[in-house]
Amino acid sequence: MKQDRHVSPSVINRLPRYYRFLRDLLGRGVTRISSKELAELMNVTASQIRQDLNCFGGFGQQGYGYNVELLHKEIGSILGVDRLTPAVLIGAGNLGKTLANQVNLSTRGFRLIGAFDKSPAIIGTDLVGLTVQNIDSLEAFCTARPTRSVPMEAFCRRYNPKAAIICIPKEAAAAMAGDLISWGIVGFWNFSSYDFTQNHQGVTAVNVHLGDSVMTLSYLIKHMDGFQEEAETEDDA
Amino acid sequence: MKQDRHVSPSVINRLPRYYRFLRDLLGRGVTRISSKELAELMNVTASQIRQDLNCFGGFGQQGYGYNVELLHKEIGSILGVDRLTPAVLIGAGNLGKTLANQVNLSTRGFRLIGAFDKSPAIIGTDLVGLTVQNIDSLEAFCTARPTRSVPMEAFCRRYNPKAAIICIPKEAAAAMAGDLISWGIVGFWNFSSYDFTQNHQGVTAVNVHLGDSVMTLSYLIKHMDGFQEEAETEDDA
Repeated sequence: MKQDRHVSPSVINRLPRYYRFLRDLLGRGVTRISSKELAELMNVTASQIRQDLNCFGGFGQQGYGYNVELLHKEIGSILGVDRLTPAVLIGAGNLGKTLANQVNLSTRGFRLIGAFDKSPAIIGTDLVGLTVQNIDSLEAFCTARPTRSVPMEAFCRRYNPKAAIICIPKEAAAAMAGDLISWGIVGFWNFSSYDFTQNHQGVTAVNVHLGDSVMTLSYLIKHMDGFQEEAETEDDA
Repeated sequence: MKQDRHVSPSVINRLPRYYRFLRDLLGRGVTRISSKELAELMNVTASQIRQDLNCFGGFGQQGYGYNVELLHKEIGSILGVDRLTPAVLIGAGNLGKTLANQVNLSTRGFRLIGAFDKSPAIIGTDLVGLTVQNIDSLEAFCTARPTRSVPMEAFCRRYNPKAAIICIPKEAAAAMAGDLISWGIVGFWNFSSYDFTQNHQGVTAVNVHLGDSVMTLSYLIKHMDGFQEEAETEDDA
């Protein structure tokens, strides 16, 4: 499989969706599919599918279409889900816990090897088989909990995680970013509004701004044809 | 403020980020800013900022820049965050709970007026001041819990929610979609992989695919210059 190094962000963002639809097809026992059928299923154009996949050398055969199992495997390989990157969770509160429990990281290219928090109520609890550790190495050195708190720097130097799932506020993320990067983290799944790639060289990030996304929905609803403003909402303005 | 009805999705997706940066500036007491300064702060070009805002009539003055408070207010108004759309949460498990607790909906254009689940362990519990109700109207009619379970259809007809936050699996979302839409829901903040807009007319949605976003990070990390595959990961392939 040939791969163009200059793949546009839009194509990259669409790859997981192809992978997901192909997995569904596989699960339903579909062995081959034309770009036209796949396009209808995914609500895109057949031409876009062909263009997107051509960035990686193309996989279809004229008159045959795509071999679903092969294409699923190839896109998985392009996404790197067959090579697990060790990752740590920074912030094991509600959001961090939910992500660790609900998103099956090991089928999506990551292995969660550590979880960290600063709250005494959370440190020491179990999360998907890991014991949440004290994020604050200073605190870990100074308190009487050395047996259950491995300082994070030592952890990173020993276990070499490359990715971090950031579920702490912006200010805390900003304060930790330099350390995390110096300890070897190169990729961030970032739920804070701190901008890692803007502030640091040589790292990559996918930012999930939940607040931004729900505001986008607010825009879309309020600009729908015929959407009626409720009289009651005037009171809240 | 003039508004172009044909604003591109990319511009719409960027608006919440402008709003967020302007709110931060306001909080720091900044009263005016040039497009150049704002561009540096946001890591975009001044030309993009001017083009984006021109979709809505533009707000800057030559030689003065932007009035931060005014621009923040105008963008908030464009996003509709000053007019609260009544919303319901469908699925009050870990993810639903986390969203209700962590995302301040009332500053982002929504008022959460109801939360629904089908799990007996969750029905009746408190969530941000709401009592989680039984999602299954049939079940509500048939069980001995009529006092705490308002059937969802009756709820929607009475309280008229327009938006739904979907935190249930794809199959459950597919099964409920038609009903929700017939009960008046027009906008979906959708965490399932069911595609509302593909399957139904006259509705809008913002889809948050957590699994897709972490796979995108897998791609980005594995295609970084100099990223070393870990020897250990071979075992997992």
